[in-house]
Amino acid sequence: MAAHLVRNPDYESYVRGHFRRVAFTTNIGAQVAHVAPGRCTLTLAYRPELGQQHGYFHGGIVATLADTACGHAGLTLVAADQGLITVEYKINFVAPATGERLEARGEVVQPGRSLFICRSDVYAVHDGNERLCASALASWAVVPGFTDEPPPG
Amino acid sequence: MAAHLVRNPDYESYVRGHFRRVAFTTNIGAQVAHVAPGRCTLTLAYRPELGQQHGYFHGGIVATLADTACGHAGLTLVAADQGLITVEYKINFVAPATGERLEARGEVVQPGRSLFICRSDVYAVHDGNERLCASALASWAVVPGFTDEPPPG
Amino acid sequence: MAAHLVRNPDYESYVRGHFRRVAFTTNIGAQVAHVAPGRCTLTLAYRPELGQQHGYFHGGIVATLADTACGHAGLTLVAADQGLITVEYKINFVAPATGERLEARGEVVQPGRSLFICRSDVYAVHDGNERLCASALASWAVVPGFTDEPPPG
Amino acid sequence: MAAHLVRNPDYESYVRGHFRRVAFTTNIGAQVAHVAPGRCTLTLAYRPELGQQHGYFHGGIVATLADTACGHAGLTLVAADQGLITVEYKINFVAPATGERLEARGEVVQPGRSLFICRSDVYAVHDGNERLCASALASWAVVPGFTDEPPPG
Repeated sequence: MAAHLVRNPDYESYVRGHFRRVAFTTNIGAQVAHVAPGRCTLTLAYRPELGQQHGYFHGGIVATLADTACGHAGLTLVAADQGLITVEYKINFVAPATGERLEARGEVVQPGRSLFICRSDVYAVHDGNERLCASALASWAVVPGFTDEPPPG
Repeated sequence: MAAHLVRNPDYESYVRGHFRRVAFTTNIGAQVAHVAPGRCTLTLAYRPELGQQHGYFHGGIVATLADTACGHAGLTLVAADQGLITVEYKINFVAPATGERLEARGEVVQPGRSLFICRSDVYAVHDGNERLCASALASWAVVPGFTDEPPPG
Repeated sequence: MAAHLVRNPDYESYVRGHFRRVAFTTNIGAQVAHVAPGRCTLTLAYRPELGQQHGYFHGGIVATLADTACGHAGLTLVAADQGLITVEYKINFVAPATGERLEARGEVVQPGRSLFICRSDVYAVHDGNERLCASALASWAVVPGFTDEPPPG
Repeated sequence: MAAHLVRNPDYESYVRGHFRRVAFTTNIGAQVAHVAPGRCTLTLAYRPELGQQHGYFHGGIVATLADTACGHAGLTLVAADQGLITVEYKINFVAPATGERLEARGEVVQPGRSLFICRSDVYAVHDGNERLCASALASWAVVPGFTDEPPPG
């Protein structure tokens, strides 16, 4: 993948600061593990209340992490006065999400002027072994203003 | 849409029973509002811990509800000894998910022997007015056994 | 579905005129069967050169028709000086596309200021019986200028 | 990506033989450029009849190539008596598909017993420079028998 143009030199604090202000993902215990231009990795430890009927991570949790990893990968490449909102994504679940934790690795495929295309892979980590459990492809719209301010209208 | 063949006369109790055994969606407060052959409607009241940075429902919650409405619509049409697991879905977010509650309406597009295709629309309800906030299209695999027993392997 | 606001009173001639200027879809013989606000239906007769290895319509043809039906449904609702370009779509193939012709019915789910969300169903018609063979969900970006003029840059 | 298990030692002739029997993609001039375990690259030269209103490759052609590259990547990993049929895919168009030719690079993300998940990127090549124009994520069902024999029913 080509190197990406960084428009906000403080991209890491911007990404981490944005992440901290999102209630749902911080409440479930998700954390930002790694940030680099065009990339973001999140982790999430298992808790029974995040499970489905077999004790695996619920698909909604896997999707939330996949989506969030894409968006925060994208936020590394926007200008300091821009944000991103999810337009849509598609996610394939390829193996049961079972293990102590999930790791979601997002990357920017194409950082456009008005739309970002991102992808992410989610791994389930069990006893130190990781296994791909989901893969996502997402579109994000560039919006003016910080993403933690409400959009106009 | 064509009328669907019901293979399990106790489909409603099967669907409601399955729903109750899924930790994450019951923990966030989601409820089954309506079940009919090929259809399922879920509702979810707003709580701040389900929000994102603007106080809207988080996209992961919207997706969870869209996905679950699809799957439970599908469960109305499987045999009593079959279950469904999500293969993949795609979701478009078309308006902010802001309001007192979400309502997700799932329906079966095609109930195949090995794959079900379902769609769902999620509405945000504010002061009694509803607004479409997301639309999803999903694939589910038919698996032998109740979905609340773990799959083999 | 709510009634849609028509911004271009000549929407039908705009849609039909645009359709005629697209080489690939006219070359394979696709035709606009019906246009209404927020809706467009296309048809395509079978020819062996559009087939795959079993003599069914090739999936690429089914997808082309699904995509085009979405886009032309969208073009009924843009202003006279606006166009639409495909951002992305997702398509599920639910039955073999076998028959004398395909019919693709597109509709607008949400006509936004900058993005349109559309869906379409493709039916295979055989001896007068139709069967759903594919279902799609698509995003389109609103662009200034007629869509048959090249975009800047 | 992990090395993939090859179940059919003649995978390359299987893939190339299957490709030759598909009318639509051979008629438009698509060619298999490269085959390896879990991977397949296709190319397609521009012709005006494959264009849209600006003289770019039509989106339906781009999607056809993306889909076909995924499927033929998958066919490298099935057993000699198995085939694959498309369940669904999602494609993002990230730049205009303009140039002398397209190159679609497909790879298998997860080769399951009953489902394969694949992805592909499509590049437009102009004066020797390539540019990513689309990215796809697809699901395929494993079917018994060669894919060039019609499925039962």
